[in-house]
Amino acid sequence: VKPYSYEFTVAFHEVDAAGIMFFAHLFGRAHDAYESFMSLIGFPLEQILREGIHLLPLARAEADYHVPVRHGERLDIWLCVSAIGRSSFTLHYRFADKKGRARADARTVHVNMVAGAAASAPLPEALRRALEPWLCPRRWTPED
Amino acid sequence: VKPYSYEFTVAFHEVDAAGIMFFAHLFGRAHDAYESFMSLIGFPLEQILREGIHLLPLARAEADYHVPVRHGERLDIWLCVSAIGRSSFTLHYRFADKKGRARADARTVHVNMVAGAAASAPLPEALRRALEPWLCPRRWTPED
Amino acid sequence: VKPYSYEFTVAFHEVDAAGIMFFAHLFGRAHDAYESFMSLIGFPLEQILREGIHLLPLARAEADYHVPVRHGERLDIWLCVSAIGRSSFTLHYRFADKKGRARADARTVHVNMVAGAAASAPLPEALRRALEPWLCPRRWTPED
Amino acid sequence: VKPYSYEFTVAFHEVDAAGIMFFAHLFGRAHDAYESFMSLIGFPLEQILREGIHLLPLARAEADYHVPVRHGERLDIWLCVSAIGRSSFTLHYRFADKKGRARADARTVHVNMVAGAAASAPLPEALRRALEPWLCPRRWTPED
Repeated sequence: VKPYSYEFTVAFHEVDAAGIMFFAHLFGRAHDAYESFMSLIGFPLEQILREGIHLLPLARAEADYHVPVRHGERLDIWLCVSAIGRSSFTLHYRFADKKGRARADARTVHVNMVAGAAASAPLPEALRRALEPWLCPRRWTPED
Repeated sequence: VKPYSYEFTVAFHEVDAAGIMFFAHLFGRAHDAYESFMSLIGFPLEQILREGIHLLPLARAEADYHVPVRHGERLDIWLCVSAIGRSSFTLHYRFADKKGRARADARTVHVNMVAGAAASAPLPEALRRALEPWLCPRRWTPED
Repeated sequence: VKPYSYEFTVAFHEVDAAGIMFFAHLFGRAHDAYESFMSLIGFPLEQILREGIHLLPLARAEADYHVPVRHGERLDIWLCVSAIGRSSFTLHYRFADKKGRARADARTVHVNMVAGAAASAPLPEALRRALEPWLCPRRWTPED
Repeated sequence: VKPYSYEFTVAFHEVDAAGIMFFAHLFGRAHDAYESFMSLIGFPLEQILREGIHLLPLARAEADYHVPVRHGERLDIWLCVSAIGRSSFTLHYRFADKKGRARADARTVHVNMVAGAAASAPLPEALRRALEPWLCPRRWTPED
């Protein structure tokens, strides 16, 4: 099992006054990888939004910054599914440079909401099945 | 007649790899001033969007950058209406520092569209009347 | 003891394709509150950067999203210091609406680094003293 | 002669409260295309910044928005050099969809500054030579 890989170059305008990639922009890039991943597994966000039945708002986001990231660096985001719950799933994003060094790790928790309802709803079975092949490999998970 | 004034401080994350405010962020700040201005004159954007009848998409945006702007600087955006047409209006934004020096000038052209229609529509009379008191003073307009 | 308060209005461009404030932008706003707070307590970031001796990079950021935030809403960020360690401090940001309802909570961990050194350094004594009056009140801390 | 092409997908967080790509984000994407172009022709921005001799700040930016751009759309930015002056050059960016329809056009003017000097300086000869092959084809230029 391999994580999903998404590549990007740190842009001129992603760097802050301290000369390193602004921490919040890493979440933006993680979300870009999430969008690309969801398209790959058959659930493009623009289609989900158009249908308007299910929504997957974030309940939580977190990141650990290991080594500052600089303008012009080319990074990979390794994305895998670290947990699938009854009505939510958690994604893990590892920001790795071309030497394979982890520069940052991020996680987002997505909850399934049915439009108009106040409480969360069980994950659609099709989405659950689409996520399962991407569960984080045991050895790769940074917690190990 | 005085232009409308909107104040902001250049944030840590608005600076780019060259250490100056990223040019596109000036347009974001200009739009913040526009939002604040539209609320003041009785046309808050969130209400316009909620009603969903009129839309005011941008047809054009432009900016001239005179003196680089740095992190932590406190600037005023002086906003006035530089033109009111049949179906559009043009706003002028002067970015001035506390010494009154012009650091940048920007303009945006907003066109009135009626939802569902392909062509532009005449500006609503109430909006035209609300804009008129804010026409740019002759002497202030940078074109002079 | 009261937390530090920072007010903002959710901008037109902070909303995402789902019509709610994009989760990463909450971190940007938290950082704006942090900048404003650091100026208040005598450690403006632009001065720290200019001196270039101490740096306070983020080692960690996290947020919990309770209730979606919408365009045009006016929110307060209540900021307090939730922990002061040997070489780091943790800030807590509560995003509250005008009814006092918590809409989101965020935390950032800042580590003191001396320029050129690889390891973290003890917090400067003056910074520690400046942070102490802002320790989160016991009853307010969301963990309670 | 062909313009340089740069492809991107409109991200979830590039859309504003009106459900279309926020106008200022088009400038951000244009700058990404510019960065990528400058690397191709042998002048990567991160190297220019590292050397610290020449700077190429923007003196002007402008855009015309023809057809609203939506979340998930895949666009090409066709970049070419529309003018080379003594100390500045102008880039043209056409945002085209996969049907070849122009959705927006943008232009940026870059001025050559030597670090520490107040006035602009002639473009380095090597940069001028690197830009020349990319002059906008006559028929393509939107002004035609």
